[in-house]
Amino acid sequence: MSAAERYFEDYPVGAVFTGGPLAVSEADILDFARRYDPQPMHVDKAAAEAGPFGGLIASGWHTGALMMQLFVAHFLSPASSLASPGLDELRWLKPVRPGDRLSLRVTVLTARVSRSKPDQGILTSLAELLNQDGEAVMSLKPVSLLRRRPTR
Amino acid sequence: MSAAERYFEDYPVGAVFTGGPLAVSEADILDFARRYDPQPMHVDKAAAEAGPFGGLIASGWHTGALMMQLFVAHFLSPASSLASPGLDELRWLKPVRPGDRLSLRVTVLTARVSRSKPDQGILTSLAELLNQDGEAVMSLKPVSLLRRRPTR
Repeated sequence: MSAAERYFEDYPVGAVFTGGPLAVSEADILDFARRYDPQPMHVDKAAAEAGPFGGLIASGWHTGALMMQLFVAHFLSPASSLASPGLDELRWLKPVRPGDRLSLRVTVLTARVSRSKPDQGILTSLAELLNQDGEAVMSLKPVSLLRRRPTR
Repeated sequence: MSAAERYFEDYPVGAVFTGGPLAVSEADILDFARRYDPQPMHVDKAAAEAGPFGGLIASGWHTGALMMQLFVAHFLSPASSLASPGLDELRWLKPVRPGDRLSLRVTVLTARVSRSKPDQGILTSLAELLNQDGEAVMSLKPVSLLRRRPTR
């Protein structure tokens, strides 16, 4: 489940990383939502079917957690991933429904060496989560703090 | 666990809503991270103790899910909560560690009636998650789509 050994230098601006698909089941949607986001559209099948989405949809935070599962497996590297200070412009674009298969596409937007810690670099990327029809269901711009490649 | 019956009109700009605390256990941190964010600082106690955080810390997406649990219980109302198109400026400010107790403070920043759907309103808020020492561990600006109060 872990990505290749990569360092800050291995993520040039414009590089694209992909991974998936990851299947989402009804049980997954219900389990996550009962604990963290127990709104009717996420936990009550009958209410969800009668509501504006016409059926159960995943919590947006569940969708984000699934994005992170793919982001750890296919973008970040255990050799260099240090932390994230945050993210910007998260958009939930389409509902995620039981049976959907989600894939990740990450494009590096900016990459700069840290001024305060010159052995670290800061990436911003565009992460897009796509369903089995190629539609973006979520997009966001995460910031990632990475180790630079060690010098010998 | 659900908030009072509230409609768009019950969230004026400047209003503050609070809730919590919610305790975070080591088992919670490990369970979430093993599934969605299996990086060493979240799933490997020995590696985390030797690393820059000096111990296990919660996945940022877990922290977000816990924020949502409080947001559903203390801010959103089942009477009016419809959906969220997204959020901006999410910041992970401090690590969340086993034993932390997290509370939520939400301040309404903007509130406007939807132009396309005049029975709905759009809120932006500042959501802050605080630990037992009153330190903000996460902040974000969610957008919430709510029903307006029905006219009789």
